[in-house]
Amino acid sequence: MKPQEYLSQQRARFLDDLKGWLAIPSISALPAHKPDMQRAADHLVGMLKRAGIDRAEVRPSDFNPVVYAEHLHAPGKPTILVYGHYDVMPVDPLNEWASKPFAAEVRDNFLYGRGSADDKGQIAIVTNAVEALIKTGTPPCNFKFIVEGGEEVGSEGLDKYLAQHQQELACDAVLVSDTGMAGIDKPSLCVGLRGLCYVEVFFNGPATDLHSGSFGGIVENPAIALAHLISQLKDRSGKVLIPGFYDDVRSLTPADRAAIQAAAKTDADLLKSTGAPKLCGEPGFTPTERIWARPTLDVNGIYGGFTGEGAKTVIPAQAAAKISMRLVADQSPDKISELFEKFVNQIAPDTVKVRVSRLHGGFPYLARTDGPAIAAGKQALKEAFGSEPLLEREGGSIPIVVTLAQALKVDVVLMGFGYPDEHSHAPNEHLPLSHFDKGMVAAARFFELAGASLKAR
Amino acid sequence: MKPQEYLSQQRARFLDDLKGWLAIPSISALPAHKPDMQRAADHLVGMLKRAGIDRAEVRPSDFNPVVYAEHLHAPGKPTILVYGHYDVMPVDPLNEWASKPFAAEVRDNFLYGRGSADDKGQIAIVTNAVEALIKTGTPPCNFKFIVEGGEEVGSEGLDKYLAQHQQELACDAVLVSDTGMAGIDKPSLCVGLRGLCYVEVFFNGPATDLHSGSFGGIVENPAIALAHLISQLKDRSGKVLIPGFYDDVRSLTPADRAAIQAAAKTDADLLKSTGAPKLCGEPGFTPTERIWARPTLDVNGIYGGFTGEGAKTVIPAQAAAKISMRLVADQSPDKISELFEKFVNQIAPDTVKVRVSRLHGGFPYLARTDGPAIAAGKQALKEAFGSEPLLEREGGSIPIVVTLAQALKVDVVLMGFGYPDEHSHAPNEHLPLSHFDKGMVAAARFFELAGASLKAR
Repeated sequence: MKPQEYLSQQRARFLDDLKGWLAIPSISALPAHKPDMQRAADHLVGMLKRAGIDRAEVRPSDFNPVVYAEHLHAPGKPTILVYGHYDVMPVDPLNEWASKPFAAEVRDNFLYGRGSADDKGQIAIVTNAVEALIKTGTPPCNFKFIVEGGEEVGSEGLDKYLAQHQQELACDAVLVSDTGMAGIDKPSLCVGLRGLCYVEVFFNGPATDLHSGSFGGIVENPAIALAHLISQLKDRSGKVLIPGFYDDVRSLTPADRAAIQAAAKTDADLLKSTGAPKLCGEPGFTPTERIWARPTLDVNGIYGGFTGEGAKTVIPAQAAAKISMRLVADQSPDKISELFEKFVNQIAPDTVKVRVSRLHGGFPYLARTDGPAIAAGKQALKEAFGSEPLLEREGGSIPIVVTLAQALKVDVVLMGFGYPDEHSHAPNEHLPLSHFDKGMVAAARFFELAGASLKAR
Repeated sequence: MKPQEYLSQQRARFLDDLKGWLAIPSISALPAHKPDMQRAADHLVGMLKRAGIDRAEVRPSDFNPVVYAEHLHAPGKPTILVYGHYDVMPVDPLNEWASKPFAAEVRDNFLYGRGSADDKGQIAIVTNAVEALIKTGTPPCNFKFIVEGGEEVGSEGLDKYLAQHQQELACDAVLVSDTGMAGIDKPSLCVGLRGLCYVEVFFNGPATDLHSGSFGGIVENPAIALAHLISQLKDRSGKVLIPGFYDDVRSLTPADRAAIQAAAKTDADLLKSTGAPKLCGEPGFTPTERIWARPTLDVNGIYGGFTGEGAKTVIPAQAAAKISMRLVADQSPDKISELFEKFVNQIAPDTVKVRVSRLHGGFPYLARTDGPAIAAGKQALKEAFGSEPLLEREGGSIPIVVTLAQALKVDVVLMGFGYPDEHSHAPNEHLPLSHFDKGMVAAARFFELAGASLKAR
């Protein structure tokens, strides 16, 4: 039987197995879900064992457990390390979900549920492809898996794990399926990722919430002070105002701009994907350049004072904002958070006490696009999806990609099967089932092609 | 027995009765507490009946029930109408309370609990004084009571009730005990209140929360847009920037400023009351002038995006702020909310959809200070507390005071027994028990003096 045939035959079981995994609310940002992390890791080990992989286990790490697996039955052939994450994002606002986030549901040939695209659904695609190769013949390469439980909160603890297990994880290329294609059935490889610097700023004014009648007009309102601060971080045009913020940004060459233009999304598509009244952003760049090759700053959450129903006349004791900056080559999250903190302390008024807390960060990534690993990915996608893949970048961050590339000194192939409207990190996350099916074929072909063309070290 | 003797004798019962009332969480801002409004009104009717008042009843209104009472046994004597409110403010943040907000507790000669100062405790003081007068001799005047359940949310429905019951409520003066004295055992009368204009501004950008990596840099972040808006409403010096905002503000005469200076709080006291790092506010005015005689603008609550623990990388679909403006004579809440809405619509960017919702409003109040009603109040306080009362204003709002003065065409005496550090509207609200005791004596003397000096119509 050919691997592709096997994949078709087992499809119903694969989907059920994935649905069972998606039912586990492995939200790494919320400590209350700690037991779900172990359950989600255990479920993946079960999937890997059912795939025929002869060693798969849950390992402790400094944060959530790590799943490690290996199947080394192709002597002389290269080794491909698969990286992914079994943790998912929080699901609020719950009332915006059309179906329950942790009760996966197929509607109109899409699989809905938290983690369906980011990243459980994609790990399932790759695991199923490996199963098809193992069950239908001699494996074309050696397989290793490292799947973590903390990617959505900055891959905490994984750097240390990688350093401690560098020998065990040695490989000839890394496959990461955690990104999106250009559109439905439009294959693409991701050759760039933005980095991240995520902080929380707290402004404290009065000792407790005060009656805004009795004291309004004589003390600082921390929410107003915070609004003034935020208005000084990014101007109305979309330019970040933190001194030095753009200093290390690699300029776009005419060739870069042409490559981005070739794979660019249309304004109409972007408007549809976002549902925003209009597009906007940093002057001098196209929307796709802004997402792929320019850094930015966003308020991810803001809160202070009375936020319930109705009216309460208080001056808040505290106001706070969760602020993240997306970074591009060659910005460093550590340097950016230092510049941020310095600027905030410089411009914050002395009528509030200021505290900046660094939540997490990650480096940006730009891939080498002329090696055999990327070539195998391009060819596999072309065969599975029937068209030439685009070389895209992604606005999101997978900080661990940089860590993997640096620690293992190999090419990282970002062959993902999501798509721009997948609503990852938002209500109604979903994966096109055509990507589930063709993705399994593409992943199997990638292993075959890479197994043949990469040199085993 | 003299009224004062009676008050001492019954003190323990009075305090127990008040504690029972404070145990009812009559929070008018939260619809879930609707049944508690009826319970709180019923409890007050019980207190009034125990006071010997021969007619006391709960009346329906368009909002929460109203308590009406009358005791008309002083023919030829004037009638004093007592106004108050049995509703209270929400209690969050709960963890900042040293004792449970609805389990009143005496500590260090203070009575702690939501409503102890604002306003159940003060209504109890006046009711107990009336009881002492009724139970110890011939009442010196006729009594009427109107106690509502919606003052903290703008006295909704009471204007209509007053208009419909104007005949029944006819009187020769109104007594309102809902304000604070200058300090502990420092008597004062309140001769001015600020008005209020309370709105909520909603900024909507993308259709749902978006992944801030995938889309950061090309769509408006509603929280950042809202921050820019707020920064344009009030400058860093404390001046409100809404065009026309100050147009109707009555200027302070040298006499006004001298009167305010005579009763002014010290900066040290204000710093202690607020716990703020420092005082600030509109240039050209003293802190007390800013609270008593200048309008201001505050953000009472702000929210948008992910506000839970940890990090979530979203661009919020919506950000909103609850914003209130305190008004002074001769500003109108209707005109100010129009100016606000017009300005917001003018400066809001076209990258968000804007909605302004008017929550409630009330006119400011400035009393006539040379009539017999105020004179009776001054003398009563002087006798009960042993020092000359100050003529203060209050930064807070009791919109209904203006309505009462206009509907009934009489003087309103604002003789309150709270104090600046009472923490009304905030955690750990409390009432000094010395004000509870001396307040009852002062209220009884006020009725005696007003009964003798006011002309019955």
